[in-house]
Formats: sequence, structure tokens, C-alpha cells
Amino acid sequence: MGRPWILDYDGANCTIGAAIGIIGEKWTFLVLREVFNGVRRFDDMQRRIQAPRQILSDRLARLVDRGLLRKVPYQTQGQRSRHEYRLTEAGLDLYPVLVALMQWGDRYAVGPAGPLALLTHRDCGERVRLELMCAAGHQLASAREVTPLPGPGARKTA
Amino acid sequence: MGRPWILDYDGANCTIGAAIGIIGEKWTFLVLREVFNGVRRFDDMQRRIQAPRQILSDRLARLVDRGLLRKVPYQTQGQRSRHEYRLTEAGLDLYPVLVALMQWGDRYAVGPAGPLALLTHRDCGERVRLELMCAAGHQLASAREVTPLPGPGARKTA
Repeated sequence: MGRPWILDYDGANCTIGAAIGIIGEKWTFLVLREVFNGVRRFDDMQRRIQAPRQILSDRLARLVDRGLLRKVPYQTQGQRSRHEYRLTEAGLDLYPVLVALMQWGDRYAVGPAGPLALLTHRDCGERVRLELMCAAGHQLASAREVTPLPGPGARKTA
Repeated sequence: MGRPWILDYDGANCTIGAAIGIIGEKWTFLVLREVFNGVRRFDDMQRRIQAPRQILSDRLARLVDRGLLRKVPYQTQGQRSRHEYRLTEAGLDLYPVLVALMQWGDRYAVGPAGPLALLTHRDCGERVRLELMCAAGHQLASAREVTPLPGPGARKTA
């Protein structure tokens, strides 16, 4: 294997790094997991992920600030108005990140009883997976079949 | 939308949580990104991700310890023997996590010049994407078409 081309390029504008800067933190991932599971209220999240309240509150505020969640008011009879958290379109588009983590975890970090949850296709009921596909419709078996090339934003290092 | 079933189940054995426990940390993601890019040597990684040497050294040791990277010795003429880091099969299987982060970042966290790198199919040259597919071969447009169901490891909370 030769010297990778990436060594000649500036890594500062890598979008993996940028994405990690936005969501790359344990509690943030766990909050997103809960919201994707339909858990939208502070107390439910807090009980489930066992985050200190201050941390959970901070992470939720940050996700709202970055446009991944939005706050929607609701009121239970006889109680004061509160809000719940819902995914924005940008938040919803993070779904493959969580599915990829789950798929890996189902294989390498699962207990003897098997996974907690299964993802199924709403329309046909079959199991859902993430697959690497190319624009010509080929399904790729692994990272070994992917060739990364310099994109339009690639800048050579000095 | 009704009450999500997940609220009646124990979240302790969620494999997303388990996967995040293993790799859910900024520097760990960045190290994995470098290795997937073919960058395998400590000094190259250190220069590219600008991690303090002690942190990089710690994260590499942890990735080796958890079976995601392995150390392979090499020697440059006239220098003492060193080692480089390569992905194990479990490490290679993390690829969709990084592609999912990149795909999201290319849309929501990209600079005006465009992305640094493009993923292409080694065999045909077309662009590569992650797609949600079901076992019946349907391609899903978004998270909205996925129904999560309790799996074999699901345990009801008391």
C-alpha cells in the first residue's frame, strides 16, 4: 500500500470532523437515540439515560441551538405548560449514524440474550440494514471496496 | 403518536449505548478516520488531528485493547523498529459509522468549497452512499419508514 493521498491535504475541513464537533459526545448521542425512539420529554429521557439533570439540560439546549431538535409546548391537564423535544429535518438526517452504531453494536457489543430492539420496514415488516451502495446500484461488501478521492474542498498542505 | 414501547423496557442493554461506550469519544473517532484514510503512523496522525501526544497514545492503546486496531511492526532503514496501526475486522466494520457521519457532515457541516473527500466505488468509480435497505430489497427514504420493535434481549422495566 502506497502513501495515502490524504497526507498531502489539510484535514481542517473534513466533514467527519465537523460532524463530530456537533454531535460527537456520549450524552448527545444518547439523547438523540431517545428522541429517535419517540422519547420526547425531559423526565423520561433523564430516567432512561441516567444523565445528571444539568448535563441533560445542557445537551438538549445545545441540540436545539444547533438546529437538530426543536421545542414544542404541551400541557397535561391540571399541570403547567411544558415542552417536549422533536427532531428537525437535520436531526432526522442523523438517523444513519445511530443505525450504523446499532448495527456494529449488535455484532460486537451485544449481550447473550440478543439486541434490545430490531429495526423493521414499516411497509413490509422485513428487517432493515444500512448498506453501502454506489450510484450505479452496486452493493458494496465492505470498506475495502471504497476508494476515497480528493473532493472539491480538498486543500494541499504547504 | 402514542406512548413509545421503549419506555416500558430497560435501556441498559441497548447496543447503541454499548457501541458509544466503546468508540463514543471525539479523539477516538478522529483516530479511526485517519486509519480508514490509510494513515497508520503515530507521527502522521498526531500532526493531522492535532491531538496532544498523551491523548493520542492513550486512545490508540484503548483501540488496540478493545480489538479495533492491531499493532504491526515496521522499520525504516537506519532507524529503530516502530509499529503502525491497522484495522482489525471489528474495526473495519465500523466503516458505516464514519460514512454516516461524513454523509451528514457533507450536507450540514460543509464549507463553501465543498467536501474534502469523495467516496467512490473501487470497481466502477461511481459515488458511494449509505442507504437504508430492508431484507426484501426496498430502499427506505428516511427514519420515518422504520418501525423499531422489541428484540430478543428486550427486558421490561419493573
